[in-house]
Amino acid sequence: MSTSADTDREEGFGFAPKFDASGLVTCVATDAASGDVLMVAHMNAEALAKTIATGEAWYFSRSRRALWRKGEASGHTQRVAEMRIDCDQDAVWIKVEQVAGACHSGRRSCFYRAVPLGKTRAVTLEFLDDRVFDPKIAYRDKSN
Amino acid sequence: MSTSADTDREEGFGFAPKFDASGLVTCVATDAASGDVLMVAHMNAEALAKTIATGEAWYFSRSRRALWRKGEASGHTQRVAEMRIDCDQDAVWIKVEQVAGACHSGRRSCFYRAVPLGKTRAVTLEFLDDRVFDPKIAYRDKSN
Repeated sequence: MSTSADTDREEGFGFAPKFDASGLVTCVATDAASGDVLMVAHMNAEALAKTIATGEAWYFSRSRRALWRKGEASGHTQRVAEMRIDCDQDAVWIKVEQVAGACHSGRRSCFYRAVPLGKTRAVTLEFLDDRVFDPKIAYRDKSN
Repeated sequence: MSTSADTDREEGFGFAPKFDASGLVTCVATDAASGDVLMVAHMNAEALAKTIATGEAWYFSRSRRALWRKGEASGHTQRVAEMRIDCDQDAVWIKVEQVAGACHSGRRSCFYRAVPLGKTRAVTLEFLDDRVFDPKIAYRDKSN
């Protein structure tokens, strides 16, 4: 059921991120040039504030439970060209200028495999993208 | 720490979605024509299977705890032109042909407000998009 707080959050000018039980919002990063989705990650209040203040993407790693500036190990940073927030303010979309690749696997995008449609069983993924960098060289650790 | 199961999931052809504790993966839907992010929602195993089998977007509503075919009330369906899955298989990206608008608020996209960058406090959202349909007419209920 809609409440007046819901209406304010959806139709107002107030920035009121709706963090989940873990204190996170979902963030979708797309390539400002190609429009491709590069990655889906999470931001806590501090990552969101730092991203807004600096125009560089900061995230919160759920596996490492740590704030993380994208590219801090690899140099593969994301400059944020634009940030948007969704209707109920639990997700943000950033358009970024991505250095090299966003994915720790070495690809430009984390979404390098297609899921074929029209199948009811035995789905086999199709690889679409080659690596744009060597992750063994780029990373001291695997996640940023 | 990486395991061999992680490597298989990231570098293999096997479709092995990694559902969270609630049985969901995140789904980003973008406009197949413009590339804009239309919405971020969730799919359970059944929604994912139905989307793959039918080429129409199905989701799982966390608030209503129900499977939901996008547009089933409004007619604002999403035909899926392409589906991709990310490196660790906990998020999917679908490029869709969206009828009218994706957002229950009446906008084409749920991301109709920008968050200005370079601020350290007092962030005020900027509206970017007008409504493309009247939600009072389109919906019998507010969510699909």
